[in-house]
Amino acid sequence: MLAVHLKNRRVEVRRGPRPRAPEGFAMIRLLRGGICNTDLELQRGYYGFSGIPGHEFVGEVVEAARRDLIGRRVVGEINLDCGCCEFCRRGLGRHCPKRTVLGIVKHPGAFREFLTLPERNLHVVPDAIPTEQAVFVEPLAAAAEILDQVSIPCSSPVAVLGDGKLGLLVAQVLAVHGYRVHQFGRHKEKLRIAARAGVETELVRDRLPAAQYDWVVDATGSPQGLTHAVRMTRPRGTIIMKSTVHGLAGFDTAPMIVNEITLVGSRCGRFEPALDLLKNGLINVADMISEQMPLSRAPAAFRTAAKPGVLKVLLTCD
Amino acid sequence: MLAVHLKNRRVEVRRGPRPRAPEGFAMIRLLRGGICNTDLELQRGYYGFSGIPGHEFVGEVVEAARRDLIGRRVVGEINLDCGCCEFCRRGLGRHCPKRTVLGIVKHPGAFREFLTLPERNLHVVPDAIPTEQAVFVEPLAAAAEILDQVSIPCSSPVAVLGDGKLGLLVAQVLAVHGYRVHQFGRHKEKLRIAARAGVETELVRDRLPAAQYDWVVDATGSPQGLTHAVRMTRPRGTIIMKSTVHGLAGFDTAPMIVNEITLVGSRCGRFEPALDLLKNGLINVADMISEQMPLSRAPAAFRTAAKPGVLKVLLTCD
Repeated sequence: MLAVHLKNRRVEVRRGPRPRAPEGFAMIRLLRGGICNTDLELQRGYYGFSGIPGHEFVGEVVEAARRDLIGRRVVGEINLDCGCCEFCRRGLGRHCPKRTVLGIVKHPGAFREFLTLPERNLHVVPDAIPTEQAVFVEPLAAAAEILDQVSIPCSSPVAVLGDGKLGLLVAQVLAVHGYRVHQFGRHKEKLRIAARAGVETELVRDRLPAAQYDWVVDATGSPQGLTHAVRMTRPRGTIIMKSTVHGLAGFDTAPMIVNEITLVGSRCGRFEPALDLLKNGLINVADMISEQMPLSRAPAAFRTAAKPGVLKVLLTCD
Repeated sequence: MLAVHLKNRRVEVRRGPRPRAPEGFAMIRLLRGGICNTDLELQRGYYGFSGIPGHEFVGEVVEAARRDLIGRRVVGEINLDCGCCEFCRRGLGRHCPKRTVLGIVKHPGAFREFLTLPERNLHVVPDAIPTEQAVFVEPLAAAAEILDQVSIPCSSPVAVLGDGKLGLLVAQVLAVHGYRVHQFGRHKEKLRIAARAGVETELVRDRLPAAQYDWVVDATGSPQGLTHAVRMTRPRGTIIMKSTVHGLAGFDTAPMIVNEITLVGSRCGRFEPALDLLKNGLINVADMISEQMPLSRAPAAFRTAAKPGVLKVLLTCD
């Protein structure tokens, strides 16, 4: 089978044997994979990664102990947890200290013709969701995670910084939940997708509004994002940090303390709300697909995904 | 009258006229002033400060429209707010955007024989509190502010990083409120003060425990404090930031996001709980006074306060 490999900042496609599925694991044939900014960061050396990347995927189950899964389209939770520890028992396997993470930490990823995942990680994709849209379940779950972490009063406008893939999903999720969302970005085309979902958008030329919002989401993916977010936040306000940036960012903590600002780190989320949002057609992800390319052309697909202005690049495998 | 001046990193004592009290302001004769780390930071150039420092004080009211204040010992809230804006109406004048701050921002400080403050900023010191202990009301209010900002479950141990003045007050306040407090510091003598208040203390030699606490207070006053705090915090845990550090700190935000940690900036607090704690003899501040020196010897007092191992240095004015 074909599999994408990252090594020394290079993307390669290699031919190799199918993986073996340990007990409790399903064998899944890849249908679509989504290239995420984290994959691009892994390519740049984040986590000292080398191996098979990919954690956004839709596949078809070809082998499983649970017979009802066979032949079904599935998406999969990316954290492989122990199932026993205190975090797992609290339903927070995403924070299990023994976890491995699909395509990120010690578990080969989804960018290969066949992959394996524990059956309990899988969610069947409802028929109403087209395959290429179901790839967005994982990042959409990460966007919806915000609503599991903080209680934003519905009267409070929320600023979203950044108009990349995650920023657009966050803005749409918040808008669907009834919030007044102001999204700030640098790309007219991208902001248009949010605007169609009822988000108030602003093309950032130079200055951002200062001390204006009680709730700010940093989804810039840039080391400067947090500094901008702090500047935009009112005293006693809250910033949700959605940008995983690799390495040390120079950051002045004084205004955070003087203004008693709260920062909330936010990562993966539950798949259920994301599947519901897509099933009900509430999030426009179709317009976020910039290109679809076969798995065999992964090096070109990674190059395309890294270009400014490009949104989601999907790897296809039919 | 004598007044302490900071200019170009120098501490000087100058003779000048008494200030004039505008309408609504009281004239206060200084009894004691406390040198805080913020004063030492101001001396190092923080806020581009030049002028009369000092925001921790006890004084005697000599002139006021409110006759009941005259002759009484008072402490004073350091934020001079507008009284009209949204923050002031919410009881958060400490965050009033138009505020000046005693001895820090655009209002001459308390390290002078006579100072002025709005009468509504003043709190009468109960007779049970000795004058030199009442100087601690302001920093103790800042320590107690934590309990106004977050709800820590009583079953959860709290780690306090740092055994400086603020760290010792934070540890004691939390212990008095029934929390199991583990304080980490570098000075045996200082930790002993917390230990006497029932705090479990640990002299830090090299390594701090990793991912052990759901609640961590950073009161190190050091740029590395936050990095240590993040390392000690369990996934989904909370860090309260009590260290105002001047300038950019290199900080890796990735573990905060991966572990979905919350950071809460924390600054000044209400004086009422601090006065109650001192009136009831619940906080040992007597052992935190390293030295008392007359206002006229302020340059030497600032040098003493900056020495490692020294806790509170008081300026006296009788």
